[in-house]
Amino acid sequence: MTTRLEQQIQFILEADRLKNIFRQSYVISDRRRENDAEHSWHLALMTLLLSEHFEGEKIDLLRVLKMVIIHDIVEIDAGDTFIYDSKKNHETQAIREREAADRLFGLLPSDQADEFHKLFNEFEAKKTPEACFAAAIDRLQPLLLNFNTEGVAWKRHGITYSQVVERNQHIQNASSALWNYARKLLEEAVAKGYLKDS
Amino acid sequence: MTTRLEQQIQFILEADRLKNIFRQSYVISDRRRENDAEHSWHLALMTLLLSEHFEGEKIDLLRVLKMVIIHDIVEIDAGDTFIYDSKKNHETQAIREREAADRLFGLLPSDQADEFHKLFNEFEAKKTPEACFAAAIDRLQPLLLNFNTEGVAWKRHGITYSQVVERNQHIQNASSALWNYARKLLEEAVAKGYLKDS
Repeated sequence: MTTRLEQQIQFILEADRLKNIFRQSYVISDRRRENDAEHSWHLALMTLLLSEHFEGEKIDLLRVLKMVIIHDIVEIDAGDTFIYDSKKNHETQAIREREAADRLFGLLPSDQADEFHKLFNEFEAKKTPEACFAAAIDRLQPLLLNFNTEGVAWKRHGITYSQVVERNQHIQNASSALWNYARKLLEEAVAKGYLKDS
Repeated sequence: MTTRLEQQIQFILEADRLKNIFRQSYVISDRRRENDAEHSWHLALMTLLLSEHFEGEKIDLLRVLKMVIIHDIVEIDAGDTFIYDSKKNHETQAIREREAADRLFGLLPSDQADEFHKLFNEFEAKKTPEACFAAAIDRLQPLLLNFNTEGVAWKRHGITYSQVVERNQHIQNASSALWNYARKLLEEAVAKGYLKDS
């Protein structure tokens, strides 16, 4: 019989694979693609530092952290979907990620599996203040990496300013301060030639 | 004049370098060395799942998470110190890490710099229940990676069972369940030839 601790460790070992799921963003200092585990850590750090910029009711920081820590684990099975991918790819993404959540969270004791499913669904729905803030941080972080790597990922995929604005504007639902910062960064990216004008 | 948000972003960009500080442990699935950012994320996930095994007063999970998220940032300047390194190296480690904390946390607005200094010092002192638990998780995680990579890092450095027990036994200050699990794992590691008998 598998004990509760053994189930938890099994999940922790399986989650190690998140370190091999690579994103489109590049790490600033050595210009290699960032993996999901590093990205999730960076979001957790940003959450600690930037939550004061959330404009709305006081948020539960612990729940935001839980969401950013677990939000990409489904990509172990479902893979990373680039936010500028085709609509078709985004449609299948939801199905792939739900199946992944079932298999991966299903390794956990049932109470923890339930908690992780709920956190993941809350993050995806972007409706609670905590999920709204987590989603804003999840979008701001790759903008920072892209700008500080001279737009290497934007250039590689031929992304334009208006595409970036369209796909990231929900940052303003969480914080006009963060969104204003992001907008200025994007304008500067165009001026510097890191990002194509629309 | 640098705004508060600009100071925070400056720190967030500097922290990106944690993704290039490599540890002695190997990632399970592709047998490359793990970096500090991935390691910190893995600890955060383990904290969420394993806090029920802490034996003592109820711990403040948010503070444990804050500690594991920031505990290795000083290594951006101070480098990773292998826990089985010479005593001399460990003596200079404390000085190097204090200087690193001053420079790195000093990039932040002063209230956040103070908070990060306090969290880092609390983690290092291992005296509060939260720091005791965070330190246990920080030691259990590399044991899991080492065992599941057939002891590649242990073998490379000629580490013995009694060294591992000595350097990791403070896990039992947090949880006899986690320490019993670790002890069994280490005995199995010796039996399988992953770890030298003393």
